[in-house]
Amino acid sequence: MMSTALLFTILNLLGTFVFGLSGAMVAIRRHFDIFGILVLAVATGVAGGILRDVLLGAVPPEVLTTVWPMAVACLAGICAFFFKPLIDRFTRPVMLLDAIGLGVFAVAGCRKAMILGLEPAGAILLGVITAIGGGILRDMMAAEVPRVLHEEVYALAAFVGAAAYVGLIWLGVAEIAAASIAVVLAVGLRLASVRFGWSLPRATKG
Amino acid sequence: MMSTALLFTILNLLGTFVFGLSGAMVAIRRHFDIFGILVLAVATGVAGGILRDVLLGAVPPEVLTTVWPMAVACLAGICAFFFKPLIDRFTRPVMLLDAIGLGVFAVAGCRKAMILGLEPAGAILLGVITAIGGGILRDMMAAEVPRVLHEEVYALAAFVGAAAYVGLIWLGVAEIAAASIAVVLAVGLRLASVRFGWSLPRATKG
Amino acid sequence: MMSTALLFTILNLLGTFVFGLSGAMVAIRRHFDIFGILVLAVATGVAGGILRDVLLGAVPPEVLTTVWPMAVACLAGICAFFFKPLIDRFTRPVMLLDAIGLGVFAVAGCRKAMILGLEPAGAILLGVITAIGGGILRDMMAAEVPRVLHEEVYALAAFVGAAAYVGLIWLGVAEIAAASIAVVLAVGLRLASVRFGWSLPRATKG
Repeated sequence: MMSTALLFTILNLLGTFVFGLSGAMVAIRRHFDIFGILVLAVATGVAGGILRDVLLGAVPPEVLTTVWPMAVACLAGICAFFFKPLIDRFTRPVMLLDAIGLGVFAVAGCRKAMILGLEPAGAILLGVITAIGGGILRDMMAAEVPRVLHEEVYALAAFVGAAAYVGLIWLGVAEIAAASIAVVLAVGLRLASVRFGWSLPRATKG
Repeated sequence: MMSTALLFTILNLLGTFVFGLSGAMVAIRRHFDIFGILVLAVATGVAGGILRDVLLGAVPPEVLTTVWPMAVACLAGICAFFFKPLIDRFTRPVMLLDAIGLGVFAVAGCRKAMILGLEPAGAILLGVITAIGGGILRDMMAAEVPRVLHEEVYALAAFVGAAAYVGLIWLGVAEIAAASIAVVLAVGLRLASVRFGWSLPRATKG
Repeated sequence: MMSTALLFTILNLLGTFVFGLSGAMVAIRRHFDIFGILVLAVATGVAGGILRDVLLGAVPPEVLTTVWPMAVACLAGICAFFFKPLIDRFTRPVMLLDAIGLGVFAVAGCRKAMILGLEPAGAILLGVITAIGGGILRDMMAAEVPRVLHEEVYALAAFVGAAAYVGLIWLGVAEIAAASIAVVLAVGLRLASVRFGWSLPRATKG
């Protein structure tokens, strides 16, 4: 049976790839050159994990000590460069992968924080930061307001995933089951919010 | 008599609340949903302290190991969400609280840096970073030029507060007196600059 | 004969000065006041090195423990403030100095990462981050898309410099020779790209 660590490694790389893809698409829309595309793909794909490791004091961050995350993010940039029109036609699968990336990063960030001894509240916050950090940096580097701040139920899905993981572990659920349920919850919430056009209340502008 | 540590804890939470409020107001103006408002409130309220602790190697940062700063920043976001029109009418008290937050964060950041062994110049820089970091992130996330860079005597007030604290400690003044005087100086300078429309020279555009 | 460490210290300060100059010029163009100019000069000059040290766990960062980088960056801000029209007339020397700063930061960042035990891929990435981090922060604080993402062969020059350094060290070349060759390569590539209008391919907008 697959170990939790291996499963997380694979899902993390998948999340890095999808986030890298989203960074590259923004870079292409902004008409950056191929190296700018790679830089934004890498930044989007690995920033969340770097931020997580720096905040946990786990430096140098994983991303700098193993070559895979960077390689995967670069690959995403190259794919986007050559197959942009194709990717554009598959907005639905890309959106699904992005939701998976969001859920996986939230739960993986939260899990690592708990392993390194953080309390539940801090661990959940760290999960959210890991999940949304890359996308925030991507949009800030494109001089745009980060989409996670005004898109339907995006940061909230990361929060729910991280909180569910903490809750399930606290209830004594096995790690791999807790992680799977939490990721599915986050992904499901995100997809449902897009599918049904859910949105959270806004303040009246006064 | 109240200990310096307790006083700083209370003032820090007050600063976090006010900075959280300012982040939430920007988010509301930008028409973010309630979760986006909370994210920007938390980011603005705690970013300075996180940056301080990361730069000092005091990780995981205080903010992630105790629940209060996050709770207070969230509370600020919720208050802003429900009472925006009310808060708008009290620009003067909010501005006063913001000035207090600025002074407290500058002095508290500087103090922590000195306790952890930094030299005066580094401690002052760290105080300024702590004080203006949250506001810079807030404006960058809203895709605006950080107000601290072009507002009247804002970063300078943080600098004066931090430098005064270092100077007074060096002169042998007791910690609590030095901190109080430094905070009052920073707050006073900030308020006076707004009241009298002081501004620093600009370069000719040439 | 000059030691490698001393040479790097001098070149680092030169790079900090030039990057500080570029930050100050952006601040002046944006009509910030003198303190805003200094803040942006310091942020641009030292951000790359701070990011490098934080990622390597070498905290507090060099910049906060020695007074020179900050002093040099402030000096750059003051020079820009008083001599903006003059500096504008010398775009060519400033561009040359900026290219030197880029090459030096890339190689110095890479070298420090290797000394602290990072693998080649991580060390190269760290060199690139050190070299382009300051400029990215500068443009993000000015609410602009970072120029390094869409300018001719800028981030690529940093990458080539860092990769050349790693390769030469691996080939057994002496440190000071490897560093010199790598810096010259990065600077040469950057200057040639500007001189001959080289640019990298862009994706079709599809």
